[in-house]
Amino acid sequence: MKLYIVSIGPGGTDTMTPRAARAIADSSVVAGYGVYLDLITQLTAGKELISSPMTRERERCEAARDRALAGETVSIVSSGDAGVYGMAGLALEVCREHPELELEVIPGVTAATGAAAVLGAPLMHDFAVISLSDLLTPWETIEKRVRLAAEADFVLCVYNPGSVKRAGHLRRACDIMLQSKSPDTPCGTVRNIGRDGEEANVLTLAELADTKVDMFTTVIVGNNRTRVINGKLVTPRGYENK
Amino acid sequence: MKLYIVSIGPGGTDTMTPRAARAIADSSVVAGYGVYLDLITQLTAGKELISSPMTRERERCEAARDRALAGETVSIVSSGDAGVYGMAGLALEVCREHPELELEVIPGVTAATGAAAVLGAPLMHDFAVISLSDLLTPWETIEKRVRLAAEADFVLCVYNPGSVKRAGHLRRACDIMLQSKSPDTPCGTVRNIGRDGEEANVLTLAELADTKVDMFTTVIVGNNRTRVINGKLVTPRGYENK
Repeated sequence: MKLYIVSIGPGGTDTMTPRAARAIADSSVVAGYGVYLDLITQLTAGKELISSPMTRERERCEAARDRALAGETVSIVSSGDAGVYGMAGLALEVCREHPELELEVIPGVTAATGAAAVLGAPLMHDFAVISLSDLLTPWETIEKRVRLAAEADFVLCVYNPGSVKRAGHLRRACDIMLQSKSPDTPCGTVRNIGRDGEEANVLTLAELADTKVDMFTTVIVGNNRTRVINGKLVTPRGYENK
Repeated sequence: MKLYIVSIGPGGTDTMTPRAARAIADSSVVAGYGVYLDLITQLTAGKELISSPMTRERERCEAARDRALAGETVSIVSSGDAGVYGMAGLALEVCREHPELELEVIPGVTAATGAAAVLGAPLMHDFAVISLSDLLTPWETIEKRVRLAAEADFVLCVYNPGSVKRAGHLRRACDIMLQSKSPDTPCGTVRNIGRDGEEANVLTLAELADTKVDMFTTVIVGNNRTRVINGKLVTPRGYENK
């Protein structure tokens, strides 16, 4: 009767907390998107696995809930932090009618801070996290958020910056940011954070607008004080120097 | 000649990644604020420790850098994620003149996702992270960010919401948010995330405005779709239901 929603971090088990690993070890059933289950095979030997494609999240959560209601200890695993565009919300929603079920969300390293660490220290001051996926959010809402976040001079961290279906989204977001931010604003991209083939680039906002990215990439756009120091992005912690 | 900037997560070693623990194990010198070093004493036995009060961050980073330049492997530890209002930026800045120094930032669980997990799943959609500390940032800048983030309907995660010196900051921030958000907006506070005495509360934005908080508290304010389900905050992942 216990359902864990477990954040496995952006990479393999090296960026997963002991608390997360223990929850999986305690579980007899582990549910997740196949690609994520593949990252943690050494933790799931002998366990019942519930795997399903990317778009079948609700069915997967319901199946996991039903195994927990049947008396099993179940982990739903989610890449990065389960609470950031992950499975935590859906898992809590599908358990709405079952307050008797013990639920525990275990936090992890999300792509924003994972990418930031690769790039240096761009998120040292106030920042906003925005997904450019309009699968579940109207594009007008996304544009408004990009515009207001840029006007507020937040550092921006962009999830789901592009895909085959969303070609041009990053370009449009950059064009909006360029209305209130300098084209020289330091930016960075990180692909495959913490995984094989991790790639990072530091570039300007003007260059970013012309960059092709895919769904495995996280993008960070600096604020008006972000600088490049020895190839790394650094946002000062405050506006005055102590 | 190696300097790690190590995120130790919001609590003790249970929320620290294996990669972070290994960096500390590999180091002969560990630098950090005393309270954070106390959370990881089992990892630092026999190591040289550089500890200094909260306000002496620059001196601490410089001392750590100098030990690395002298040939030691050094870890600067930082609570939560070192790249979010932590030590990563300052560490990279004080190493500006030493590109020969190998620097590695190791990400961790930040208070935003740590608090979100305790409260349920409030950060499931676009969110902004704002510190209410005006120690290094003009209060006008903070107010502008709070106002625009609320207008953009970001979920807000507030760091440093209050202290003895900053009594009234959260109240002022809530009053700004109430100009564009419903007083019934579900909110949450978490004190001592992942540590002894962890305390969480779910309340409305109107109630939050009248709540006293201290510097050990992280505050989350929902967006216009955030709901309370079985006592937990849940923000739906998108604006349409699949």
